[in-house]
Amino acid sequence: MSALPTSAPAARAPLGGPGGTAPTRSGPPRAPGTPAAAALLERCRDRVRPALVDAVGRLHPWTGEMAAYGLGWADRGGTPDPDGSEGKGVRQTLAVLGAEAVGADGAVAVPGAVAVELVHTFSLLHDDIMDADALRRRRPAVWKAYGTGPGVLAGDALLAQAVTVLAEAPGHRTGEAVRNLCRALNDLVSGQAEDLRFEERPWRGPGAVRPEQYRSMAEHKTGALLGCALALGAILGGAPERTVATLERAGRHLGLAFQAVDDLLGVWGDPRVTGKPVHADLRQGKKTYPILVALADGGAAARELGALLDSVGTIDGETAEHAAALVDAAGGRTGTREEARRHLDAARRTLREALPGGRGVLPAGSGILAAGRAARELDALFTHLLDRTW
Amino acid sequence: MSALPTSAPAARAPLGGPGGTAPTRSGPPRAPGTPAAAALLERCRDRVRPALVDAVGRLHPWTGEMAAYGLGWADRGGTPDPDGSEGKGVRQTLAVLGAEAVGADGAVAVPGAVAVELVHTFSLLHDDIMDADALRRRRPAVWKAYGTGPGVLAGDALLAQAVTVLAEAPGHRTGEAVRNLCRALNDLVSGQAEDLRFEERPWRGPGAVRPEQYRSMAEHKTGALLGCALALGAILGGAPERTVATLERAGRHLGLAFQAVDDLLGVWGDPRVTGKPVHADLRQGKKTYPILVALADGGAAARELGALLDSVGTIDGETAEHAAALVDAAGGRTGTREEARRHLDAARRTLREALPGGRGVLPAGSGILAAGRAARELDALFTHLLDRTW
Repeated sequence: MSALPTSAPAARAPLGGPGGTAPTRSGPPRAPGTPAAAALLERCRDRVRPALVDAVGRLHPWTGEMAAYGLGWADRGGTPDPDGSEGKGVRQTLAVLGAEAVGADGAVAVPGAVAVELVHTFSLLHDDIMDADALRRRRPAVWKAYGTGPGVLAGDALLAQAVTVLAEAPGHRTGEAVRNLCRALNDLVSGQAEDLRFEERPWRGPGAVRPEQYRSMAEHKTGALLGCALALGAILGGAPERTVATLERAGRHLGLAFQAVDDLLGVWGDPRVTGKPVHADLRQGKKTYPILVALADGGAAARELGALLDSVGTIDGETAEHAAALVDAAGGRTGTREEARRHLDAARRTLREALPGGRGVLPAGSGILAAGRAARELDALFTHLLDRTW
Repeated sequence: MSALPTSAPAARAPLGGPGGTAPTRSGPPRAPGTPAAAALLERCRDRVRPALVDAVGRLHPWTGEMAAYGLGWADRGGTPDPDGSEGKGVRQTLAVLGAEAVGADGAVAVPGAVAVELVHTFSLLHDDIMDADALRRRRPAVWKAYGTGPGVLAGDALLAQAVTVLAEAPGHRTGEAVRNLCRALNDLVSGQAEDLRFEERPWRGPGAVRPEQYRSMAEHKTGALLGCALALGAILGGAPERTVATLERAGRHLGLAFQAVDDLLGVWGDPRVTGKPVHADLRQGKKTYPILVALADGGAAARELGALLDSVGTIDGETAEHAAALVDAAGGRTGTREEARRHLDAARRTLREALPGGRGVLPAGSGILAAGRAARELDALFTHLLDRTW
């Protein structure tokens, strides 16, 4: 399982109807989701960009070049890559909207937005080394382009700079913001540790990974930083602690929903959209949610799936197709769709708890209209980000 | 060049007289330096230990095991290694003494001491990967024992935890402490980047590494964290900003002196003490201070050395011995001794500027006696740490 892929949200993945397979289509995959969501992401990226460029520019030139490559701003060698493979900037957007939704100017969230984006980039660089993933956003991963040692170093530089930018943010709640980021960092690293350890465990029996253990890993590895992004926006925007905590919880649910969708795409995603071979996660023997849910079902298909996974070393195309059908038959696909839906619903519900302004009942104040708009934008963004499944 | 080796200060390296070679001795190398310094290091380690154990204990169990191995507390597999290969704890000691020397109880410095020790361990783990160093303190490096990916992850976990411990420290100067640690972290990573980039540069000509460029690298890579350790102790101990800055400068000079000694040992150190082959840095083609100073000399020996380094790929035993003699003849050994002496003197002088209590003129106050003692202990420790050269 890879970390939340930032390029994936750009494309609507044709997963087909319940139980169906990816439909055959003549044209290329569809372009990004709603124009409003794309414009929203762009607006927030534009707002954060100067500070992000500045933070990367303060790195040693060599690590800065690797960081720019990792961010999709430049080719190997540092040549700007204007139509390159930049991520969508989901985390920076959540930070900016988190501040706006609590009635502040999005500008106050910029150090938080920079921090979460740098942490995300750090985690991609290091995770690709740990997972031996040679490709990231259809280009060689940083460690493939520059070497493993330099890739480690560039990640370290990004992490150090992330904390620095936030620690140097003005305002009296900087300490709280840094502690929040630290918690997310620890969760992120723990989640990666859990994920790597899953590889050693059996498919079946008492040592098997249970779906709820997978969920805990995903909350750490994917949910924590999304929750932190919203929380940092709210903290820097001056929100009360309770609002901060509620927004953080919403972001964590979003992360769980996102991970479930990512796992669906890992088995049934269209290679033209995901950039990976069909049934990629099954071929690589990854213990992802659909497979674990299917195995936990205990029925005939689950037993056949378990025996199949136990018996083969490398899973080739035909076996992968059969395994995918067994996962589906054992309820892995439906269960994962339900997981995604459940956490998207929880994310949206939690968001409304934190931000009643989205429904027009925010306490009066100068930023009330803007805050209400931001709350509605967040809600729409949540839905948009999950729009790849249904 | 490796980062400051924490095991090395334990042993007095027989460098011989000026221009001489390591003397042949019948017995094993001498044991640790002054008993007072050893007792001081032990006292500070004991003081910090519970918090350090707690911080490592809060990691994911797997990264915690790797961290304990990296700290020399446990064997591979997590079995405690009581007489193991633990570092001397120079950085945690500097933090504790930094607080005591400004009149505070050393206990206030503990979060800072834990942070710098964890950052140091992080840097050893990742630097060993980048430098492909398979051994650390005579055992397999973490990446050799656990794999590269897990080694990267354990380093990340240590770094995240380091910042967390400090960010959660009580008191109103935590933010200042975190910012100070962040600056040191950025310097550390930049220093490692500079060092790795030196490898690509020629021995001679306009692109050659100049001694002052090497010094800048060493200040970042080795000096910054030693300076930070003292500064954190002083900040958490409530010292005025000016005292903090002066102590930080003293620590940076100490780091430069330490690096110079390390470089002398890298060429002329006794393999029984250093654990490396004789002339190790020359055999590995490392661009360290003695060699760069010798090459910059411009005389006949420097020219012969440059031609030799340019002409050979791998330097074997006999060639390394000849190269070492040329470095010596071109003033590389004397110049590096002078560099070490100069920075040790500067470190002690700067320490006295910051802490007049060491000379008995500290302003009156309840902790005056303890502060004066700590200032003198720091001064003695500085000298002890460099005691390997002369």
